[in-house]
Order: sequence, then C-alpha cells, then structure tokens
Amino acid sequence: MKFQDIAKGDLAILGLPLDHNSSYMMGPALAPMRMREALHCGSANLTSENGYDIGAEPRWKDLGDLTFSSAEASIGEIEAAASDIINRGAKLLSIGGDHSVSGPLIRAHTKVYPGLNILHFDAHSDLYDEMEGNRDSHACPFARAMETGQVKRLVQVGIRTLNQHQKEQAERFGVEIIAMKDWTPDTTLNFDGPLYLSIDLDVLDPAFAPGVSHHEPGGMSVRDLLNSLHKLDADLIGADIVELNPHRDLVGMTAMVAAKLTKEVSAKLLG
Amino acid sequence: MKFQDIAKGDLAILGLPLDHNSSYMMGPALAPMRMREALHCGSANLTSENGYDIGAEPRWKDLGDLTFSSAEASIGEIEAAASDIINRGAKLLSIGGDHSVSGPLIRAHTKVYPGLNILHFDAHSDLYDEMEGNRDSHACPFARAMETGQVKRLVQVGIRTLNQHQKEQAERFGVEIIAMKDWTPDTTLNFDGPLYLSIDLDVLDPAFAPGVSHHEPGGMSVRDLLNSLHKLDADLIGADIVELNPHRDLVGMTAMVAAKLTKEVSAKLLG
Amino acid sequence: MKFQDIAKGDLAILGLPLDHNSSYMMGPALAPMRMREALHCGSANLTSENGYDIGAEPRWKDLGDLTFSSAEASIGEIEAAASDIINRGAKLLSIGGDHSVSGPLIRAHTKVYPGLNILHFDAHSDLYDEMEGNRDSHACPFARAMETGQVKRLVQVGIRTLNQHQKEQAERFGVEIIAMKDWTPDTTLNFDGPLYLSIDLDVLDPAFAPGVSHHEPGGMSVRDLLNSLHKLDADLIGADIVELNPHRDLVGMTAMVAAKLTKEVSAKLLG
Amino acid sequence: MKFQDIAKGDLAILGLPLDHNSSYMMGPALAPMRMREALHCGSANLTSENGYDIGAEPRWKDLGDLTFSSAEASIGEIEAAASDIINRGAKLLSIGGDHSVSGPLIRAHTKVYPGLNILHFDAHSDLYDEMEGNRDSHACPFARAMETGQVKRLVQVGIRTLNQHQKEQAERFGVEIIAMKDWTPDTTLNFDGPLYLSIDLDVLDPAFAPGVSHHEPGGMSVRDLLNSLHKLDADLIGADIVELNPHRDLVGMTAMVAAKLTKEVSAKLLG
Amino acid sequence: MKFQDIAKGDLAILGLPLDHNSSYMMGPALAPMRMREALHCGSANLTSENGYDIGAEPRWKDLGDLTFSSAEASIGEIEAAASDIINRGAKLLSIGGDHSVSGPLIRAHTKVYPGLNILHFDAHSDLYDEMEGNRDSHACPFARAMETGQVKRLVQVGIRTLNQHQKEQAERFGVEIIAMKDWTPDTTLNFDGPLYLSIDLDVLDPAFAPGVSHHEPGGMSVRDLLNSLHKLDADLIGADIVELNPHRDLVGMTAMVAAKLTKEVSAKLLG
Amino acid sequence: MKFQDIAKGDLAILGLPLDHNSSYMMGPALAPMRMREALHCGSANLTSENGYDIGAEPRWKDLGDLTFSSAEASIGEIEAAASDIINRGAKLLSIGGDHSVSGPLIRAHTKVYPGLNILHFDAHSDLYDEMEGNRDSHACPFARAMETGQVKRLVQVGIRTLNQHQKEQAERFGVEIIAMKDWTPDTTLNFDGPLYLSIDLDVLDPAFAPGVSHHEPGGMSVRDLLNSLHKLDADLIGADIVELNPHRDLVGMTAMVAAKLTKEVSAKLLG
Repeated sequence: MKFQDIAKGDLAILGLPLDHNSSYMMGPALAPMRMREALHCGSANLTSENGYDIGAEPRWKDLGDLTFSSAEASIGEIEAAASDIINRGAKLLSIGGDHSVSGPLIRAHTKVYPGLNILHFDAHSDLYDEMEGNRDSHACPFARAMETGQVKRLVQVGIRTLNQHQKEQAERFGVEIIAMKDWTPDTTLNFDGPLYLSIDLDVLDPAFAPGVSHHEPGGMSVRDLLNSLHKLDADLIGADIVELNPHRDLVGMTAMVAAKLTKEVSAKLLG
Repeated sequence: MKFQDIAKGDLAILGLPLDHNSSYMMGPALAPMRMREALHCGSANLTSENGYDIGAEPRWKDLGDLTFSSAEASIGEIEAAASDIINRGAKLLSIGGDHSVSGPLIRAHTKVYPGLNILHFDAHSDLYDEMEGNRDSHACPFARAMETGQVKRLVQVGIRTLNQHQKEQAERFGVEIIAMKDWTPDTTLNFDGPLYLSIDLDVLDPAFAPGVSHHEPGGMSVRDLLNSLHKLDADLIGADIVELNPHRDLVGMTAMVAAKLTKEVSAKLLG
Repeated sequence: MKFQDIAKGDLAILGLPLDHNSSYMMGPALAPMRMREALHCGSANLTSENGYDIGAEPRWKDLGDLTFSSAEASIGEIEAAASDIINRGAKLLSIGGDHSVSGPLIRAHTKVYPGLNILHFDAHSDLYDEMEGNRDSHACPFARAMETGQVKRLVQVGIRTLNQHQKEQAERFGVEIIAMKDWTPDTTLNFDGPLYLSIDLDVLDPAFAPGVSHHEPGGMSVRDLLNSLHKLDADLIGADIVELNPHRDLVGMTAMVAAKLTKEVSAKLLG
Repeated sequence: MKFQDIAKGDLAILGLPLDHNSSYMMGPALAPMRMREALHCGSANLTSENGYDIGAEPRWKDLGDLTFSSAEASIGEIEAAASDIINRGAKLLSIGGDHSVSGPLIRAHTKVYPGLNILHFDAHSDLYDEMEGNRDSHACPFARAMETGQVKRLVQVGIRTLNQHQKEQAERFGVEIIAMKDWTPDTTLNFDGPLYLSIDLDVLDPAFAPGVSHHEPGGMSVRDLLNSLHKLDADLIGADIVELNPHRDLVGMTAMVAAKLTKEVSAKLLG
Repeated sequence: MKFQDIAKGDLAILGLPLDHNSSYMMGPALAPMRMREALHCGSANLTSENGYDIGAEPRWKDLGDLTFSSAEASIGEIEAAASDIINRGAKLLSIGGDHSVSGPLIRAHTKVYPGLNILHFDAHSDLYDEMEGNRDSHACPFARAMETGQVKRLVQVGIRTLNQHQKEQAERFGVEIIAMKDWTPDTTLNFDGPLYLSIDLDVLDPAFAPGVSHHEPGGMSVRDLLNSLHKLDADLIGADIVELNPHRDLVGMTAMVAAKLTKEVSAKLLG
Repeated sequence: MKFQDIAKGDLAILGLPLDHNSSYMMGPALAPMRMREALHCGSANLTSENGYDIGAEPRWKDLGDLTFSSAEASIGEIEAAASDIINRGAKLLSIGGDHSVSGPLIRAHTKVYPGLNILHFDAHSDLYDEMEGNRDSHACPFARAMETGQVKRLVQVGIRTLNQHQKEQAERFGVEIIAMKDWTPDTTLNFDGPLYLSIDLDVLDPAFAPGVSHHEPGGMSVRDLLNSLHKLDADLIGADIVELNPHRDLVGMTAMVAAKLTKEVSAKLLG
C-alpha cells in the first residue's frame, strides 16, 4: 500500500519507527512491526468489541512504516506524511515510536481541523519545555502542540507524575488534567468539535503494559481504558498509539495490548 | 487414589493432560502437574477464602491425571471417566488441558443432570462449528455442548472477541453473553437447577494470567472472578479449569492463580 | 548520612537487608538497594502524587542499610536502631527485608507512642505463634506485636489466606480484619491516635507485584493501595515497606512499585 | 523488492513465515520478521567476520516474506518461488519457518544443480517417513529430499537424537552422520560439486539458541558453527536458516544469532 | 511402580523432593516432577546418544517421588529407601533434591559395595564440616561421605570455588580435585572397582544451566559433561543428579539438561 | 571508605555509574551496585580460583561509586579520580559504566606508566573517530586512548564486528587485533612493561553474558576468558570491567559473571 492509494474516507495506518528522542531507554522504534505481528497473529481475530470487523474493511489501509532520511529530519517528515494523508481526505492512525511523534502529528492536524481538541492518555504530562536540551524530546510534545495556539482543549487523563515545572506549564497552557488519583470508571469525557486522540501505553499500569520505557505504577487497567474509549462521545479524526518498548515485553503481552487498542481505535475512527 | 476409591459425596480432582486440539500453541497438557505443584507449594495454605480447609477434608480426592490411549480416543475417554465419577455419586473438578475437554465433560453431566445450566467464564465464546477442520478443537466445545439439546442455559461471561460467525452461533443456540465491556462487579449470576462451571483462565486479563495460549487484553482481575464465584448463588455440581499454558508462565504466577481457583471452586463444590 | 545527623522533625529512611526469617524463599535482603535504584532511576521523578517533592526536602534523610552483627542479633539491633531514631524526635520509614522486621520496629514505636494503632496491608495475617520453631519468623510479627499489650488497635487489610490457627489468634488478640473479599474502594480507614503503617507488598495482586516470595492471587491493584493511602485520615508516625523479593522481579516492576510507595508514604509522613 | 527485480548473480533473501508442519510448538512463522529486526538493529553492523559489507552490496536483495494462498498449498508455493529465483540465475537464502520448508527448497535446487550435495546442521536427522500422519512434517524434509534420488551426498552434522527408525532411514538413504558426540573443532567438511546448506538453529546448544521449539542440550556453540562455515571449502549455491521460535526467545538472543548467521552465510554465498 | 516391583538387574528411578538443607535458595524439591515433565515431553525421544532406547527397556522403572515423614527424618529415610533398592539387586538413579541427598545415598552404597569410588561433578567441593550449624547442609555431603571411612577414592571435577576451609578438608580426606581451570576435554577419568556418580548441575556454566541455586560462572558445557560420561571407563553402580532449581529456569532449559543427563546416565547404568 | 583512605599498595575498587555515552541502550549506570550485590551474595565466596581470599585482604578497598557533577563533566572527573588513586601508589579496578570510561582511565594511567600496554577484550574495536557526533561515545574510547601517543601496544582480543572504518583506524594506530575467529584456547598473550586491562563483557558470547547492550553472538566462554587471565604473564597495573547492562540480565547471571571477573582480576592485581 502506498500513499497514493489512500483515498477520501480511508483510515491509513502508518508505522513510526523512531525512538531517538527518548530520554531513558531505546526500543519504541521496534514497535510498529511488533504491533502488526500481534494484530495478525493466529491467537485473535480482527473484530472489535462492538462487532466491527476491520479485516473485512477495504478502507482500512496499512501503509507500512515511514522511512526517515535522518534523525534530524524525522520530525519534519512525520508532519509532512501526516499532512499528505489528511489532505487526501483520509484519517490517520499512527502506530509505534516514542511520544515525540505527537508533536508533528498534532501540528499537521491543527492545519486542517480548526478548533482541534486533544485527548491524551498518559502517566506523564509531557509538557516539559525541553529535556536535556532537546525540545523534540518525548517529554515535550504537548508543550510543542500548545505553542501552536491552534489547540482548543487539551485534556490529559491518567497523569501521576506531575512535578512543579510541568504543573506550571499546564497552568500556562490551560491544560485540563484528570490525575489518575482522581479518575474513576465513571469519569466522562465529552468534546465539542474534532478530537485527536493520543495514547501513551504507560497510562496503563505496568502490570498490564510492562513493555514501556517508563514503569509508573498505579495506572489504568486495559479494561478501564477500553471502556473509556467505548463511551467517548466525540468526533474522532485522528490518533496515535505510542511508547511500546519491545525490549521489556518478555512474552509479547504489551504488543498484544497495543494491537487490541489499534483495533478498537480503528473501529472508532471508521465507525 | 483410584476411581474405585471415589464414593458418594466425594469431590474428585482429575487432571486432563491434553492439548492436541489447540489451534495456536501447545502447553495445556502440562497444566495439571503445575497446578498441583502450586496447590501444595510451601508459600500458601489449603484454606479457602471463606475458611474451608480442603487439606483437612477427606472427601477431597485427587485421582491424578487421566491416561489417554491415543489422541483420537481422548475425547471419548474423558466423557467415560467423567461419567464413571458422576455415576458414583461424586462431583468432578477437572484441572488442566485445553478447552476441548469441556465438550465431553458437559456431555457426561447432561446425562445425569436434566436441565443442566452452564456458566462459562472466557475471553472467547468457543462456539465455532469447526476450526481448521477439527470439530473437537478448543474453539468449539460449546457448540458441541449446545448440540446435545440437553443444556437449559449457557451463560458466557467475559467475552471480548465475538466475531460474526460466533455471534450467529450464539443466536442460533440461544446463548446468553455478558460481554466483558458490559460486565461490572455488580453483575449478578443466578441459576435455577444444577450448574456446571467452566473457567478458561483467559477470561482474566493477561496481566493476571500470562500463562495462557491466547492473550486477550481487557479481561477480569482475579479478584473480580473470585468475588463472582463467592456470590454465585447456584447448585454447583461440577467444574473445569482449563487453558493454563506453562510455556508462557515465566515465574509460575498463572499456575498459582489456577491453584487458587481450584481451592475456591473445591470449597464451593464441597460446601 | 549517619544516625547522629538525624534531627527532630526529620524522616529517616533505613534499609533492612534481612531475610533469614523467611519460610519459603530468600531474597528480601536484596530489597533496599533495589528500592533505592528504582527511586533514583532516570525514568521517574521524586514528586509524590499530591505534589510533594521529596527530592527537595532536606528533612528526608537516607541512612543507608543497617549492618547486623549476626543473624541472631538482628532483631534486637533493628529495635535499637529504630528507638535511636525515634528518640531523636524523627520518624522512621524502613525499606526492605522480610516481614520479621515489623516485630522489633513496632516494639520500638510502642515505647514512645502510647496507644499506638497499626494499619497492616497484607495477603497474610502473620499472626502465627511460631513457624517451624521460629518465633521471629516472617509469619509471626503481629503475634509478637500484640503480645506487647501496648497496641491499641491492629487493623489488617487485604487478608486472603486466613486459616483456623490464625483466625483463633486474631480473635485472641482482638485483631480487626478486612478480608480482601470484603474490601471495596469505598472502604474507609480511620484511626484515633498515632498510627504505624506496615505494607507487605503481597497485599497487591501478583500481577502488580510479581517480585514477592508468596504469590497470593486476588489482591489489590497498586491504584487501590495508593488511593487508600491518599484518603487515610490519621496521625502517621512511622512505617515499613517489606517483602520485595528481587529474584522474582524479572523486569524490575515490583521494585518500582516499592519505590513509588516509598515516595507516597514519605510524603504522608512528612506532610 | 519483487521477484522480477532479481537478476543473474544476485543473492535473494526470502522470508518463509510458516510453522503449521511443526509437531510440538508453533512460532517459526514469526521468525523472518524478527531476523530482519535483528539484522538491521542499531546494536551491530552489516559487515561479516571476513570483512564483507552486505549492506553495501547491491546484489543482496531482500524479497520480504512469501505469501501463501493456503496451508495446503504452501509447500508447493515454496518450491515454485525457489525455482523462479534460481532460474533467474540468482542464489536463494531463505530465512525462517520450520524445517518443513527444506523439502521443497531442496527439490527446486536439485532440478537446476545435478549432483547436488547437502550439508545439514541439526540436532535431529529429520528423516522420519512421516510424523503424526504428516509427510510434510518438519521431522521429515530430508526423507523427502533423499527420495528425489537427485541428492549426491547428504552430510548431517550435530545430530544427537538418533533413534532406531531414523537410524534405519539414514542407512537406507546412505546419509553420512557426524554425531555431535563425535564432532570436534577439527572436523573438516569437503564437498565436490554444488552444495546446499541447511541450518536448523537447534544444532546449537539451547544456551546459545533458547529460541527454538526443541531444546536438545549438548549442541554446538555459535563459534563452533561460525568457524565450521568459515573453513568450509565448497561451491555454496543456496541455503536456508530455520526453526527460530520467537516465543521462547525472551531477550531476542536467538534472533540475533539467526541474523549473524544470515550475514555470514550471505557473505559466503556472495563471495 | 512400587518398591516391591523392583527386581534384580533393574534400574530404579527415584525422585527426592527435598531442599530444606539448602543454604541460599529453595527450589530443588520441585525438581523431580520437572525432570519427568522434560523427559517425557513431546520435543524429544527416549533414545540415548549411543542408541539405547530407555523407553523400550522394561528394567527402567520410575518409582515416583519418595515421601518424607518429616524434615528431620528425611536424611534417614533416603538412606533406607536406597538400601532397600540396592538390596533387591537393583541400581538406583535418584533425581532432584539439593545435594544433601548424596550423604545418605553414598552411605547406603558403601554398605553393599566395598571399595566404592565416587566421581563428583560440581562447582563446589561440598566438603564443609557444617554450614550455619547444619551438618546435613547441601554444603557438607562429601565430608559426611568421607567420614564413613568406606570410600576408596573421591574424585571431584569442575571445582572452581575452593576456599581455605574446604582445601584443608580435601587434604584431610585425601580428595582428588580436578579444578575447572585445570580440566580439558582430554582429561581422562579411570576407576578401579565400583563407581558412584554424583552430578550437581552447577558443574555446568550458568549459561547452560541457569536453573540452579548457585550461579558459578566458568563451568563446563553440556557437551563437555556428556563426552566425559561417554568416555568414562568404570563399573557404574549408582548415581544422583541434583540441584535443579525450577525457580530460576525461566524457559525450562535446565530441566531439559537434567532430563538429558537422566537418559544418558540411565543408559550407562543399564548398559 | 574514602579516597584519603587509599594507601600505597592498595587495590581500590571504584564504581562508575555512567551510561549517557551509550549509542543503543541505557543500563550500564546500574552496573556497579549489581556487581557488588553479586560479589557479596550468599551463593558464593570471595576466594579466587587460585586461592586468593580477597575478603581477607585489607588492601582490597571498595570506594563505592563516583559521583558526577554533570554528564558533561563526567569524563574529566573519571580521569581526575583515577589519577588521584594512582598517585597514592595504589592500583585501580573500576567496575561498571559503559566503555566510554576507558578513555579517561587510560589517559590517567599513561601519565604515570610510560610505555603502557593495553589488553582489550571486546566484541568491538571501539575505535570509531566519533559516533553520532559524540567523540566520547562508548564506540570511541580506544581511538581517544591511541591519540594520546602514550600507548605502546594495544592488543584487542575477541573482535568480531570489524567494519571498513574501524579497520582503517586500527591500521592507522597500529592496533593488534586477534579476531574471535582466529582466537583459540592456545593463543598466548605476553606483554613487556606495565599492562592495563579493559574487559567489555560483550567479548563473551551472549549465552554467557546476556546482560549487555550489544548482543554479538560467537564470543568467548567465561572459561576461555578466565583461563586467558590465569595464564596472562604481565605486570598488570590497572583494569576496568564494563558494559554490564542489568536491564537484559533477567536472572542476574551476567552480574555474577562480572563479579567473578572482579574477584579474579583483583587477585591478579594484588598477587
């Protein structure tokens, strides 16, 4: 499948094999291939929990992995690729990579979707102004997104590591944070206007997703996250699923979680 | 302990070391021995959560593992062994094996218990008409059970992989499905008449039970399952605990879950 | 940092590298070093969930590990070290070791805090009179604590292995048990007077804390435990976090849980 | 890269994602992707031990994975694909799959290379006439190869599981077996005429290659195997590397072994 | 199979599920069951490397595991069971347990075989006079054996942890030590008179046998050990294979090594 | 122990918790603590294979870990600390860190030892001029060392990844390379004048040392390396043991290898 095969109404799947902006551990560059392996493995089927069979859906198109010309160019190339897809009238679900990919992905979406909302599931706010001198660090994408001035609302769910700097950044940008300690299964999420969804797998407790770079105990269960997605009432127009780290995923459990989310988010984007 | 030692009122434990009907991964044939190892290991005791000490109960009798004369004969031999035990006035709790064992186990019980109900915890409906040409596949036992025409109600809990074929099978057989997405800790389960219980360990989230062949994220916690069993109000007359796969159970965590369930279900069957 | 550096108002962290009183598996002696490693690793920060930055708190003082002159002397040396710290007007949070350390720790606290209450999170009551002839076994510390006659209330939360002997011990000592099967997120814990907190990591389900000697499925989630601590309304005056066993902690997940608890309990003790 | 891009003098790499002929454990179908992941991962380079940089070699062409129309058709489709490549004047190195792939691969080579020799590294002779009724089983490929009557010599190295049936088959077909117990680093391997090489990773001791379906202790070290290949004096015209099973390869060590062998065998085939 | 079924000329296999004399880590009590699981698993056959099919040998009789009446009584009960078997004119191969079992096993053999020689493969000399007050510790069996005064020669192979105390013990008892640093594949082992063989799996490098309590790097390969056994020229009359610890044997590799050794030593004892 | 406690004739052990110069994977910063844990764990003793008891040697002094003021300053601070120790007339054995530490360590030694020789065990030459713009990368230390012009001979043993750039660097600097494919147990290593030893654990095959960042199959066994050290005839004046990565060391096997090497190299340095 190639970019020119993407047509209006399609959902493009695009792998982002990138992790050089990670601050602690490499690995998420390997994620897209492992997610596809889990998605197509013989132990499951391609029907979502609400009965949508993405395996039978011709609009679901996997573009394979984006190739980068260099580490430096990668952030720009992600934005260009995302814009290309969106401009064809298709939606994009990107899989894999560390969280630095969300910066360019969101920038591309803000250009086409005025009044864009963002729903961000994560253990961390990723609002650092910079990390070890790197403004494209995976600790910074939502600072970059908010600086565009084009984001209507940024709602962060599952946060459990807010330090003083990030708290100040959140206040400065008007970020709405639903900390993990305040979240309950009854928490409702409603958005007016187009919604972009960014799922960092470490929003889940490490028990459910050991294959991430940053183990932060006290997170959601997979069921909590799935139910949140099922009852989310919004006009979902794009999404990313990031931070799978196969190096820590001894029996492939986290890859399977990422694949299940890919399936459920796909059904939501296509539905 | 031998079959002839089983008497009226006893609870017979029988290991079923069988996995040749598995579609994706071998392993459950090793389960019975690992479950006994966990049950008797020095890190726990034999008292159930409601205070029943099965270690002090003479009616709790472990028959060891069933020996099969051949792969082809195994399904028939399971049914014969189950019938032998039930006909002695005892109850049967079988441990280990893949889910194909539930077909013959249920057939044996329907012959003695008219109006039999089945409560089935699983991520999968296992209602396939056939799988890769095998009608005894571990994907099919509940199709086989319903075809007997002797099952009053089949209630499936925790399902999260229902595709079109299985949905049609469920409708055809009148199966009641409580999908995992609709289940809550408040869900109540009531049965009129004798109840057979079948627990596939993959009803649990892989975080709790990594040692299964089919990782399907988004499942129950062990506590959810235990509480469901504790508050189950029914005339429990038999049970199986299946699909433990030691190959994926790196530190023996799932074997311990299976052993704990063996203890709790035993207390329920004896109580 | 040395004992003489501890002053009034400080919170002393003290590692207890001891596991010879364990009945099933060695390992907890390695826990203090692994907890520090996790606490200071680059994947997290030192701010608690309610915003307390213990990294910036000069009263938070890590004394390193206690050195024992012999296995026999260790229980007495723990009590002496604890008394030394408490008598300086500081609080103590001990990390690591098996649960046998709680006996001497509690004895030291009862001498300074009349009417001491104890809140004990665990899968096991640890009320054995003796275990394999050892009255200092990790199965016995709360029998030892209650025998002092100085404990006002002992509340145990998360218990799921109560056998007849321990049930009788609980009745004899007037222990209040909130069994795991009866616990809900709404359970409230209130104490009048000073409170000592003892957390055995196996109160958590093995899915969340595989790195413990005794896998007892059906436990709390990390979030359950954190929320219980957050809403605990009491005058917390000391605590221990015990039974981390690195031998079973393949990717360091449990060490990270123990470190997170260290951070949250520290904030509670300092707050 | 497509089949039509393969030209005379090229070395084609072809992934064979197939494991339904395995008798004990699924998994080798996942091997090709994992071998590519290891080959291109950032921890190594693409230069062989004798200084050949396959990354800079335009004749080294990766065709990706063969797609099968059905399980039944797969054996025939492998033979057809191999013939297609060989008939273009190129050499083929197939990666992944279980050992059943060697039957059709060797058949394709015998048609073009009269007097073909085979060098086979393995713990097992794989000379069974049939296994559980399957004549294409991964236990049978060398019986199938010898039945063509077109193989001049079959030399098996590293065998350590020869039972009576396979011993008889070896005698019937005139197979030369260098059992592992008789092999030494000084063993020399010389062939007159074209040589096809088949490497089953379980020729290695499980210490070096845990990621295989059949753990057979007492095998070669990786260095033993590499040195054997380096000093092999023969006209190498094709090869396969089989039986990598990622399910047992916890930290990816065996995938890296398979990737290293791919690099070294490629250099040998191109040199 | 029962003791009374053992007849002259038989080889009795007896499991010894015992580890309370271990100084560092529990686990070897689980070994016998895991060794049988590996021996009979579908990934291998029962033919030894020299072609002896123990699966077809009626004299090969597995007695299952010895049951102990108490920890204190276990050492005496092992000696009694061994004497019972030997006195029936059979040979004994005991499997599993920690090394403390060798003391009573050797005592039983010295009573029947005057001028007994012992060949002992191990990383450790196990010649301690006592360990933590326990003279039956797994660190002491060969001190106990030599104290009988009935052992003609004790040859220890693979030792790499000799400290001053054990060096003195070795000199006192006239033990012949072939340290691992001095061993080569050409080292020959010849014995005059009956030979008892004791294999501690930690003679192997931890790479080959991670599932042992004491990781001591720098050991033999499995091939080294197998070849030593193959070329051993002696009248082998009994053997034990000890110290398998399943807790550290993540993918069952060491259990398979122990099973392979069981097969090869059985062939030697029967041949 | 502090720097001022180091006296003439001592052997100082210094931990270097640093890994920010690693190109592929973080982790070696955790190595020093894990090496000490393994060195002092209850499963082994402190006597080297030639009978030297470092536990009883007062000149063996562990300084703990060096603290760095910043990532940028670390390389300079290592050189300063090493010089401090050497200038006191003591020898230094540094433990842990990635290989970038060897640059400053060797610089410090060349200042005191004219005509310094270096013996370097590694899978990689680490002769890159720079790596991703970093001239202090762990891929570059021996280029830095040779640029001092003060190194008499650099002998590299075990290399198996030499690409064109590194080959040119080796020729430019006159490095003597004994590639792994050419090494045999009979290879002798002789040096005239003082010798500095640098051991990268990845010189070992990943089977023996899975806990390293760069798995490069085909390496030495631990026994090969130990024997090389035992028979090394040279005036050893300093050493480092680097690249232990605990993240990949599931059961602590590699930490134990590193600890064993620490013991043996210590005996060599003290002897």
